[in-house]
Amino acid sequence: MSIIDKFNQRAEAVNSLLCVGLDSNVNRLPEAFLAEEHPQFAFNKHIIELTHAYVAAYKPNIAFYEAQGEKGWHALRLTMQYLRDNYPDIFTICDAKRGDIGSTSEAYVQAIFDNLGFDAVTLQPYLGYDALEPFLKREDKGCIVLCRTSNSGSGEFQDLEVNGKPLWMTVAETIASDWNALDNCMLVVGATYPAEMKQVRDCIGDMTLLVPGIGAQGGNVEQTVTAGINQHGKGLIINSSRGIIFSEDPAKAAAELRDAINLYR
Amino acid sequence: MSIIDKFNQRAEAVNSLLCVGLDSNVNRLPEAFLAEEHPQFAFNKHIIELTHAYVAAYKPNIAFYEAQGEKGWHALRLTMQYLRDNYPDIFTICDAKRGDIGSTSEAYVQAIFDNLGFDAVTLQPYLGYDALEPFLKREDKGCIVLCRTSNSGSGEFQDLEVNGKPLWMTVAETIASDWNALDNCMLVVGATYPAEMKQVRDCIGDMTLLVPGIGAQGGNVEQTVTAGINQHGKGLIINSSRGIIFSEDPAKAAAELRDAINLYR
Repeated sequence: MSIIDKFNQRAEAVNSLLCVGLDSNVNRLPEAFLAEEHPQFAFNKHIIELTHAYVAAYKPNIAFYEAQGEKGWHALRLTMQYLRDNYPDIFTICDAKRGDIGSTSEAYVQAIFDNLGFDAVTLQPYLGYDALEPFLKREDKGCIVLCRTSNSGSGEFQDLEVNGKPLWMTVAETIASDWNALDNCMLVVGATYPAEMKQVRDCIGDMTLLVPGIGAQGGNVEQTVTAGINQHGKGLIINSSRGIIFSEDPAKAAAELRDAINLYR
Repeated sequence: MSIIDKFNQRAEAVNSLLCVGLDSNVNRLPEAFLAEEHPQFAFNKHIIELTHAYVAAYKPNIAFYEAQGEKGWHALRLTMQYLRDNYPDIFTICDAKRGDIGSTSEAYVQAIFDNLGFDAVTLQPYLGYDALEPFLKREDKGCIVLCRTSNSGSGEFQDLEVNGKPLWMTVAETIASDWNALDNCMLVVGATYPAEMKQVRDCIGDMTLLVPGIGAQGGNVEQTVTAGINQHGKGLIINSSRGIIFSEDPAKAAAELRDAINLYR
């Protein structure tokens, strides 16, 4: 069994490809949570309780915890412990976009996989396979490599032409054919680029894509699902962060997005 | 005055281009430090006291602190406070290799520049300018972008040919011509690639390079300095981590490397 089957089994159990991004920026937390001992954890627990029934994965972006220093790391640790204790079948992704030489990657593996206990991490491709090997050789963990990111200027380097193809396509092909020997790799492709997502899907077979950019960033659900779904009606982890966690009614926002995704599967 | 002048002034004051990498991996600390309340901070203080006279910059790689969770962040915070209190003219680089979309980069800016108080940070180019703008618009801080990294497999993507040139050259040109409007950008070029370093130097004028890969990774001092020095005998921040901090005699190792660098300036 591949680690990605943990996501797939949860996706089947709750009939959902939805990932909720726990980007719990302290500056945006409702005031009630700021009085708690661990504001980010209290907020996350609240969001998890409201949304877990609709969710196949949670994805905290570690930057919002690092912005709070030691307290933020503690809140993230408590959040992971809470998920393990209460919802151990929900897939967990640390959105960290790490990438460093091998001896340093080992330290990140210890931090993110072994100590915090995440199922998967997002990674930068620029340093190449040998640098990321400490992540990639972990068959029990998922490695989600940036391919086509959701930001408006992502083409600056990603669109550069390499052998008649954009760089992001070469990254997709390399991960699919060379890096994925342990069947633990996925790719990040932004919902803001559905045409590129279709090209990635056509080139990588059934591999799973993590898709940011729905909601606050403007990605369209129908285009995303149509372009990215694989032949088994899976292969997508569709993330929304701010659009759910800071909405008036996070449970309703999560349920509606899950249903909208399923409408086009 | 550019933030890079802080490095240049310190380099002149101690006649040194040396940066010591405080990659204080707990698994490699001498046993005496493990009994301290804050082992990584106690070790760093010891190394700083032994080496500061020969040093223009310190560069902790944040991965080795994250591997210790909250305690590691606290040790890093104490280290930065110690440097500010005792050696405020030494340049500080957070080796974090961050890169995320703009709203997330803002959180990293808060963590690394504003809260920990680093003078500079290392960054990934893959997402493009708009993603890194929260770092790049900070005229008071340095942005050191990965160009040609020191690992043996760095060519996997970095050597791909774009418009008849390797990708790393396009990255160098783009940072030098487009990203450096505030004169706060530098590039990472590994000492393990002196030929490429010469090409980068020829294309970017006097911009400063951060050079990892001397020592444990096998980079050669003479080749590095000859290839990378700018017309003012500066433009290089030459880092050694393990080769100094875990040597039998860190003071001697630092003094010798400083002198070896100066021999070829």
